[in-house]
Amino acid sequence: MINQHMHDLGAAPNKIRELFMYGLGRKAEIGADKVFDYSIGNPSVPAPPQVKAAFLDILGEDPVKVHEYTPSPGDPAVRAAIAAHISKANGVDARPQNIYITSGASSAIAISLGAVTNPGDEVITVSPYFPEYKTWAETAQCTLVEVPATEPDFQMDVDAIEAAINERTSAIILNTPNNPTGAVYPRAALERLAAVLRKKGAELGRTIFLISDEPYRELVYGADVPYIPAIYADTIVCYTWSKSLSLPGERIGYIHVNEGIEGDDAVCTAVSGAGRALGYICAPVLLQRVVARCLDVPADVSEYAKKREVLTGMLRGIGYEFVEPDGAFYLWMRSLEPDAEAFSERAKQFELLLVPSNSFGCTGWVRLSYCISEKTIRESEDALRALYESYQA
Amino acid sequence: MINQHMHDLGAAPNKIRELFMYGLGRKAEIGADKVFDYSIGNPSVPAPPQVKAAFLDILGEDPVKVHEYTPSPGDPAVRAAIAAHISKANGVDARPQNIYITSGASSAIAISLGAVTNPGDEVITVSPYFPEYKTWAETAQCTLVEVPATEPDFQMDVDAIEAAINERTSAIILNTPNNPTGAVYPRAALERLAAVLRKKGAELGRTIFLISDEPYRELVYGADVPYIPAIYADTIVCYTWSKSLSLPGERIGYIHVNEGIEGDDAVCTAVSGAGRALGYICAPVLLQRVVARCLDVPADVSEYAKKREVLTGMLRGIGYEFVEPDGAFYLWMRSLEPDAEAFSERAKQFELLLVPSNSFGCTGWVRLSYCISEKTIRESEDALRALYESYQA
Repeated sequence: MINQHMHDLGAAPNKIRELFMYGLGRKAEIGADKVFDYSIGNPSVPAPPQVKAAFLDILGEDPVKVHEYTPSPGDPAVRAAIAAHISKANGVDARPQNIYITSGASSAIAISLGAVTNPGDEVITVSPYFPEYKTWAETAQCTLVEVPATEPDFQMDVDAIEAAINERTSAIILNTPNNPTGAVYPRAALERLAAVLRKKGAELGRTIFLISDEPYRELVYGADVPYIPAIYADTIVCYTWSKSLSLPGERIGYIHVNEGIEGDDAVCTAVSGAGRALGYICAPVLLQRVVARCLDVPADVSEYAKKREVLTGMLRGIGYEFVEPDGAFYLWMRSLEPDAEAFSERAKQFELLLVPSNSFGCTGWVRLSYCISEKTIRESEDALRALYESYQA
Repeated sequence: MINQHMHDLGAAPNKIRELFMYGLGRKAEIGADKVFDYSIGNPSVPAPPQVKAAFLDILGEDPVKVHEYTPSPGDPAVRAAIAAHISKANGVDARPQNIYITSGASSAIAISLGAVTNPGDEVITVSPYFPEYKTWAETAQCTLVEVPATEPDFQMDVDAIEAAINERTSAIILNTPNNPTGAVYPRAALERLAAVLRKKGAELGRTIFLISDEPYRELVYGADVPYIPAIYADTIVCYTWSKSLSLPGERIGYIHVNEGIEGDDAVCTAVSGAGRALGYICAPVLLQRVVARCLDVPADVSEYAKKREVLTGMLRGIGYEFVEPDGAFYLWMRSLEPDAEAFSERAKQFELLLVPSNSFGCTGWVRLSYCISEKTIRESEDALRALYESYQA
């Protein structure tokens, strides 16, 4: 009598978590420093000191006020601060009423999909992709349409996206900088996509919303991350401080409904409604106020940049093929055999935990999360070489 | 092209919030002490000092660990602590794996409905009721069936509930102590209900789940609040610390899938799946750890008890008819005309903000949230009397 779809979702093997749990057991067995765990994307850089200072400061205020409900889109002062921050950073005029504060990017995407799709619609994304996109599209009673990225650079295939658009297409989810590939989409590609979305939207007489999932916006290594709403008006930005402020477990982010959307007020209203429908009352209030005080705190990219340099240098030296990561803290490496799951299994023999690309909707690659200590990365070199050599026989 | 249902939900007038916003404006106009705002259910008692102490203590730990993701059902140590607390308080053997930590009771109910219903099912509740039950039932593609409480005591009408059960009934949502009536259901009534649910379930060959919404469990004035899973095995408890620890904006609660449910493991799995589907990753991690350290901190009922005594004494003296509140911080008072909305409008002439019962699915009554200062309650006496007398002409 229970809901079988929900049961299947709950029972679905999560390869990332499986590998992570395997790693915990293995570390207990042979020692933490002997296992090279590239499985999970938990930020390894601590939250900046301003975060703790903000917590302590706010906790010193009147406790009734500190912990009380906010309106469902968030504390008005926090929404105003976020809008001002977006405006300043991008030379635009973001309005507080277009900001809806969420419990992280996950709820932001689920809510956005609820707001701008209807049952039976299709939602496009570029594969490989964060697997929950499919889950949330299905919650909105939509079908997720996967358009493969170009290989081996894992950029958008705009022609293929154009071909995938039809009269049921209501939205496309983009994620740049990308999880799992680390790719960043350049401005020219985004402009080509925008032109296609405008053209197809006009042909079909409908708005195709671009849902921009931006957890890694600030985590880039020199690459330009264009402000997408300035390129494509019908954009809804889903942001989280999970990675930029290293607060993944606190669940705090926002939806920004771009002011350039025709009828943006109605979209904001639908966002509020979708939040209600999914059981959200407001984002955690203490976190709302903490991030409002840390909007200008820069993400600490330097540590990830160092790890990236060490890892790419090692892999290049050994002979692996991989996508040079422009952003996020993931490296996308070609499997040494067509079956990435078999490759991931063999890697375990060398105490290397690599997530097979099948988890992200494509074959033949693995993801390495390099948000681990530089020491562990350096010490994994022999194992990575031995794994490589095991295929050269 | 946006989702009209979500838009309508977002645009739906919320009478409670409307009154609250009206009150803010009116207070600015004539002075805060001249407006008697009984509209909203924000706890007026501060969080106990142990909450702040727990925050400070945890914030002193390793910041990478403090803010990192937990597994989606919650931190294993916190789940174990909650299970142990439930076990000790109720003389049962609750298992950590049956606890799923949520972003408050709202997400707990939305997730539970997702887990144990299927599209087209019916979910019963007793009216008047917290209006979001309807929203969340509809998200699960179910119909909410409202069974009126008995008047004027606003207890369950078990015969009417029995008559409402059919082959599509998958769950009943109960809320005791009740919002908006303050009623507490006695053990005998719960036992009668349990017998009916068992009998009808056997007849229909299906499990009828009891979803017990318990935000006000500890806020009672002498009344016994029975542990419902011990009375009806197929119970899922939805709890929040919003009211008991005065943390409404922080969003922290749990689902407890009773161990007595046949196939409880499958229900827990479906709960996990439904959480994923609705966009939840994990409950806010800092809050998980804070409440784990405050499980034995008693809710401060004494302040609410005092306010209740003052308010009921005044209303009785004037001549109003009301339900003696046994729990929560709401008082349910009969409107002095059949149209509660007109009564609420007239009350505004006396600077009294009373929520009409229409907001909760019934007519002819108003709700007074007495989680305001005792001084304000006392000072509202003249206005309450003048309102009463305005109907005696």
